[in-house]
Amino acid sequence: MKRIIETNAWPVLIDHAKRMGLAENHLQNLIAAPGRFDAFSMKAGPFLYDFSRQRVDTAVMNSLYDLAREQKLPSRFKEMMSGSRVNVTEKRSALHTASRNFSNEPVLIDGRDVMPENTHVRKQIKAFSQKIHSGELRGSTGKRFSSVVAVGIGGSYLGPEFVATALKGGADKGIRLHFLSNVDIDCFGAIVPLIDLEATLWIIISKSYTTTETMANANQVIAFVSGLGLSPEKHIVTVTSKGSPGDDSANPVLASFHMFDYIGGRYSVTSAVGGVPLSLFLGYDRFESFLKGAAEMDIHAASAAPEKNAPLTAALIGIWNNNFLGYPAQGLIPYSSALSRFPAHVQQLYMESNGKSVTSDGQPTGADTGMIIFGEPGTNAQHSFFQLAHQGRPFPIDFIGVIHPHYRQYKNRSKGVTNHQELWANFIAQPQALACGRDNADEPARNFSGNRPSSTIVIEDLSPENIGRLLSFYEARTVFEAFVWDINPFDQFGVELGKTMAGGIRAEIAAANEDPGHLFDDRDQIQKAYLEMLFSGNL
Amino acid sequence: MKRIIETNAWPVLIDHAKRMGLAENHLQNLIAAPGRFDAFSMKAGPFLYDFSRQRVDTAVMNSLYDLAREQKLPSRFKEMMSGSRVNVTEKRSALHTASRNFSNEPVLIDGRDVMPENTHVRKQIKAFSQKIHSGELRGSTGKRFSSVVAVGIGGSYLGPEFVATALKGGADKGIRLHFLSNVDIDCFGAIVPLIDLEATLWIIISKSYTTTETMANANQVIAFVSGLGLSPEKHIVTVTSKGSPGDDSANPVLASFHMFDYIGGRYSVTSAVGGVPLSLFLGYDRFESFLKGAAEMDIHAASAAPEKNAPLTAALIGIWNNNFLGYPAQGLIPYSSALSRFPAHVQQLYMESNGKSVTSDGQPTGADTGMIIFGEPGTNAQHSFFQLAHQGRPFPIDFIGVIHPHYRQYKNRSKGVTNHQELWANFIAQPQALACGRDNADEPARNFSGNRPSSTIVIEDLSPENIGRLLSFYEARTVFEAFVWDINPFDQFGVELGKTMAGGIRAEIAAANEDPGHLFDDRDQIQKAYLEMLFSGNL
Repeated sequence: MKRIIETNAWPVLIDHAKRMGLAENHLQNLIAAPGRFDAFSMKAGPFLYDFSRQRVDTAVMNSLYDLAREQKLPSRFKEMMSGSRVNVTEKRSALHTASRNFSNEPVLIDGRDVMPENTHVRKQIKAFSQKIHSGELRGSTGKRFSSVVAVGIGGSYLGPEFVATALKGGADKGIRLHFLSNVDIDCFGAIVPLIDLEATLWIIISKSYTTTETMANANQVIAFVSGLGLSPEKHIVTVTSKGSPGDDSANPVLASFHMFDYIGGRYSVTSAVGGVPLSLFLGYDRFESFLKGAAEMDIHAASAAPEKNAPLTAALIGIWNNNFLGYPAQGLIPYSSALSRFPAHVQQLYMESNGKSVTSDGQPTGADTGMIIFGEPGTNAQHSFFQLAHQGRPFPIDFIGVIHPHYRQYKNRSKGVTNHQELWANFIAQPQALACGRDNADEPARNFSGNRPSSTIVIEDLSPENIGRLLSFYEARTVFEAFVWDINPFDQFGVELGKTMAGGIRAEIAAANEDPGHLFDDRDQIQKAYLEMLFSGNL
Repeated sequence: MKRIIETNAWPVLIDHAKRMGLAENHLQNLIAAPGRFDAFSMKAGPFLYDFSRQRVDTAVMNSLYDLAREQKLPSRFKEMMSGSRVNVTEKRSALHTASRNFSNEPVLIDGRDVMPENTHVRKQIKAFSQKIHSGELRGSTGKRFSSVVAVGIGGSYLGPEFVATALKGGADKGIRLHFLSNVDIDCFGAIVPLIDLEATLWIIISKSYTTTETMANANQVIAFVSGLGLSPEKHIVTVTSKGSPGDDSANPVLASFHMFDYIGGRYSVTSAVGGVPLSLFLGYDRFESFLKGAAEMDIHAASAAPEKNAPLTAALIGIWNNNFLGYPAQGLIPYSSALSRFPAHVQQLYMESNGKSVTSDGQPTGADTGMIIFGEPGTNAQHSFFQLAHQGRPFPIDFIGVIHPHYRQYKNRSKGVTNHQELWANFIAQPQALACGRDNADEPARNFSGNRPSSTIVIEDLSPENIGRLLSFYEARTVFEAFVWDINPFDQFGVELGKTMAGGIRAEIAAANEDPGHLFDDRDQIQKAYLEMLFSGNL
């Protein structure tokens, strides 16, 4: 593969970027062109991707699609979905799409069909969640389970939390769901008062069953549950790799569900990682509907021609804004409270996948890779950091709208409109204001330069299917961008150095726990200062 | 005042930045200097600010302090605290510090002492919260209040939410606190099932009592409460300006607390905006302790010499990273679950204050202003976007640590350390890994370039005083940065254009509500498409 800077499209796009910097190509002018909306928006089933307010014209888009073909985006996505070992540094496949594949076609890794094991896990989850909901399975004192705590971090946390938050309006199984993610003991401590321990099921989620934070929390849970005289094996299930310490009959648990090495943490919400907590919280049927929405978008991403392909086009817009227009960050603003944790999920998905510095064959990429992604729901964000979005350093934004809210029964009107209509008035106005600006030469503090780009995504409602589509759209966009740079979006070696260094410091702390006279003289002055604070209890 | 690019320090700092780019000035080398920690860290009472892992040396810091003096940072901060009309575009003072001033000295605006009105509001809050807690004041059916819903957005939401989340371990008054911020009806809908309406007190927070979202939610509340046969005037209190529609005896409420035009929303958590919900949730005494911690940091910021001044130094580091080293964004990573909403608060505080393009006299600033601020708690963030922090585009980070967690009773050890010690092992390791990196020429995907700067802040525990110190530190850092650029951190004209445009769209929606035949032909093609989606109910 070529590096992006070696493609034929690269110098062409550099020239386009200069041209788009001319005053005549201000967004205010671009969006006034007849047919702009129809030409610069597309649907993927009941999912709208509108890039009419991006700083592009037909010539720019044609060159971006040339770049996509030059970097073989369509074929690489298909290779990913059909089991190729696209995670080249770890020599693994990346088959999150298999976890929601309902096609009845085999998906082969080196000739082995992985579909049976994926289907099997889903059947297990369905049966298990029904037994919990029916009361057939109960806690060790006979109480029905009313609380579930998902113990996991990173990909084992943010995806399930996003989906649970998005769909909680439909959580009618009598189960409350909590997330124990951070190793901070205050995360555990804050959950304890909210649950009835006798009626609580803990789901320990870790592929290797060695993730330090998750194991520290799992051990805390086991010690605490045992201390209350309850049987941990009747209150714990695991989601882990086959044969890990969490899937060992020497450590009995109520049930164990497998996850596979071809699905990375940040892509795992459609596997058992999301499947177990979400099926318990929402019911298995809603989880399966969520998978079907995601699968539909997977098929679109793999089969639609580039010019009709929504996540591929979104990836090209990301590359354009980043490498050619020079924006370092992107906002993600859902106009829906239910999607309040979606920015944190995409922040992980995208920044961990694409925050890389070398290509798949180890060369420096030669161009900036992943942008910084951040966001809060609108209209809240309008009253927070949108001042900077309008008048400070510019950054592109993805706006997300939902045509129907979940709670439709509250219809009081203020200023002639319902709350939901007010939300939409703002959802429609903000991209327009950012694009067009408003000159005010008399009062410079009230001048708006405009020309600030955004995309707009719309789903029809907060159904599980639509949440699945949204998830898969951003997953596909992420890997398409990686393919443009020829980086590996499926490894995360960048997290290793900090872990290694934490291991050394942990050993110092453990030594000081055993020997109060232990000095931290092997550490540099800064680390020593902090270790002394921790042990002295003050600054 | 000079623009930053016209200061004597500007070209000197440009030269320093070139010098700091040399390989010999890699952070790995800088932090190895003897005495580095002591020379590049400082305390403000029981509050540590450590910038030893920033890309600075003594010469850089001397030039930054020259810049601070040239831009008159010390005197301008004192002027702000003593009532000068530093919010020049709106011709107002900026006296958030008055809301936590316990000095018994007058604070004058044009000769009028504002301390009596601030003290009076605090006394009202104390008396009112005691009456709620004692059960003297009850709902209209005689039930004791057990839920409080704070209805407000932006500054009326993020600050109180941050503090409530930080201190909720000490919330022992039998009151649950919810926030109704977003105009999205799903925000209201999600709260209703969580509360007993007969035992719920609603706090409507809006300075003008015209904020569209807050009024839409307030009207929704009134309609709903009345519809249940309850008396809204016994279930609603207001925090608003004297004489606003929320402080009018024609609209009776249980109580009304004043806020003043010299305290902007994003600086208002120590006023009645935070005072009413936080005193109800935590008790007035804890709120007052929180104010006293903030006041202590205010005094430090106003009186410590620049070289000993923690928030002033943090502001200079911000300017250095932004304007001289060219970083566009900053991470804010609290190693404490309790501080999980602090990044969202600072994101608002800083980006709304400093996302500006013109100086206080209306000239273009000539240099970039506020950075993008984002963050999630550690260690969670390590498993999310830290891949990019270590191997993608670099950005500076503020790490925040707390020596003692809230829940100290859970002491189970994994790998020889408690959960809290594991948290600290990571809190100590991450800045070190970012600074030093690790060469790996054989495996480029495992190479860490290092030289990634960070600051570290430590407070001793999650006491109200320390949360107050943390709040005031970031407020002072924000305004000190603004003073360097000579921008006005107290206005927010950048939010006006979107509001104006939303008003036009709202009018279209209201017209279509009245007349189903209304066409949206006055709108451009893009706005029209979205209005049609909203009314047709599908894409």
